[in-house]
Amino acid sequence: MRYRITLSYDGADFCGWQSQPNGNSVQDAVEIAIEKLSGEKPRVTGSGRTDAGVHAVAQVAHFDLEKEYPPKTIVGALNAYLPKSVRVTAAQVVCGDFDALRNVKKKTYMYLMYCGDALPLVAGRAAVVGRVDAAAMNDAARSLIGTHDFATFMAAGGGAKTSTRTVYDAYVERDGDFVEFFITANGFLYNMVRIISAQLIKVGRGENVDIPALIAARDRSAAKDIAPAHGLYLYKVEYANHRLDLCRV
Amino acid sequence: MRYRITLSYDGADFCGWQSQPNGNSVQDAVEIAIEKLSGEKPRVTGSGRTDAGVHAVAQVAHFDLEKEYPPKTIVGALNAYLPKSVRVTAAQVVCGDFDALRNVKKKTYMYLMYCGDALPLVAGRAAVVGRVDAAAMNDAARSLIGTHDFATFMAAGGGAKTSTRTVYDAYVERDGDFVEFFITANGFLYNMVRIISAQLIKVGRGENVDIPALIAARDRSAAKDIAPAHGLYLYKVEYANHRLDLCRV
Repeated sequence: MRYRITLSYDGADFCGWQSQPNGNSVQDAVEIAIEKLSGEKPRVTGSGRTDAGVHAVAQVAHFDLEKEYPPKTIVGALNAYLPKSVRVTAAQVVCGDFDALRNVKKKTYMYLMYCGDALPLVAGRAAVVGRVDAAAMNDAARSLIGTHDFATFMAAGGGAKTSTRTVYDAYVERDGDFVEFFITANGFLYNMVRIISAQLIKVGRGENVDIPALIAARDRSAAKDIAPAHGLYLYKVEYANHRLDLCRV
Repeated sequence: MRYRITLSYDGADFCGWQSQPNGNSVQDAVEIAIEKLSGEKPRVTGSGRTDAGVHAVAQVAHFDLEKEYPPKTIVGALNAYLPKSVRVTAAQVVCGDFDALRNVKKKTYMYLMYCGDALPLVAGRAAVVGRVDAAAMNDAARSLIGTHDFATFMAAGGGAKTSTRTVYDAYVERDGDFVEFFITANGFLYNMVRIISAQLIKVGRGENVDIPALIAARDRSAAKDIAPAHGLYLYKVEYANHRLDLCRV
């Protein structure tokens, strides 16, 4: 039986998604919980890695078990065994060719910025940026939309074959003392959202930043800054055959 | 010199505002930071206590020092000495008859409720309530406005002389997956906001709760429930002579 689960986690408590020797990863935490539930030790495949400190509103993963459990049992039992900083928010049985990593169609990240004073209440969960002009940031974010070579916004070490990606949507909006940057694409380069966010924060502070010119440069040295990991949230993962009945045909 | 400071803190890290033997209180943390800055050991007087787990967006306190420091130095130096879970967000020099406790004119509390799935990201900072009807909760909250005997909503142990208070404003609004209850009054009875919030949550779940009838009962046994401390935020404290120039006349 192949299971698909949706996970939310506070990245502050983990060394990232990916299992690491001596590391406290989300993947390890989930695999340990599955073993406690089932006695089986399947590998859990996520929709992609998240770095240390990065949060997830809705990460998606799959794994296989010999045993069959109702989805409700998967949710309840895994949450009983998981640390509080990871929660399973949904589970379903899917066909054996659903792949949480390979079948990703779109991903959405949110970068959360905080402009207010009550810092202890957002510590580790937003990047503190002071006063910024969200409208100017939104104008800059809109210019990311389209199919571009995003090499300027790619950190070394990601191992991507190509640095061209299609950004379907990108916008910035103010919500009280928070400013939120949402970006949806068919895929993301290593540290892409944090490198873009650093440039958007500069825009918000009135610095002269030309996003189309940065894209055209195709050179990371044009955009060296990187915004902190703890502002980043994996927000949504979408699949081509996201409907269970389609998957079962 | 009398100093007035505004403080924000994450209540999860403290046994409450009030200094306690062997306790990790916000008051103690601030007094220790002041001693490190000045070598003096003044008592810090807050606008009132907050219980263990209760947060502050803007608590107000005063203290006296022989030495004179510019307000900017007070903010910077105290933040350097304080744990990250407490921040001083403002400081000013005030006249000697400003009293953070006695001069309070109005206080506003927020009770923060969360209806979504991404629980690790709100852990300890909101009460998880599931789906609730915020419009119905708002209608119920509005009926708190006015001068009433709030004995029904008073826990034992507060030591208040009278249980009559004037509620200037009370409303509930939805903000995405959050539901926020704001209440402003000339003062609050012990656990009053948490006891009221428990009733509003029942309203939001469709239970038959009659707030005016509860007020009229003047009896805590009519409203025994109490909402968790970690949803409560001291949001704003207002003073009669809040302007420095008035205070100095």
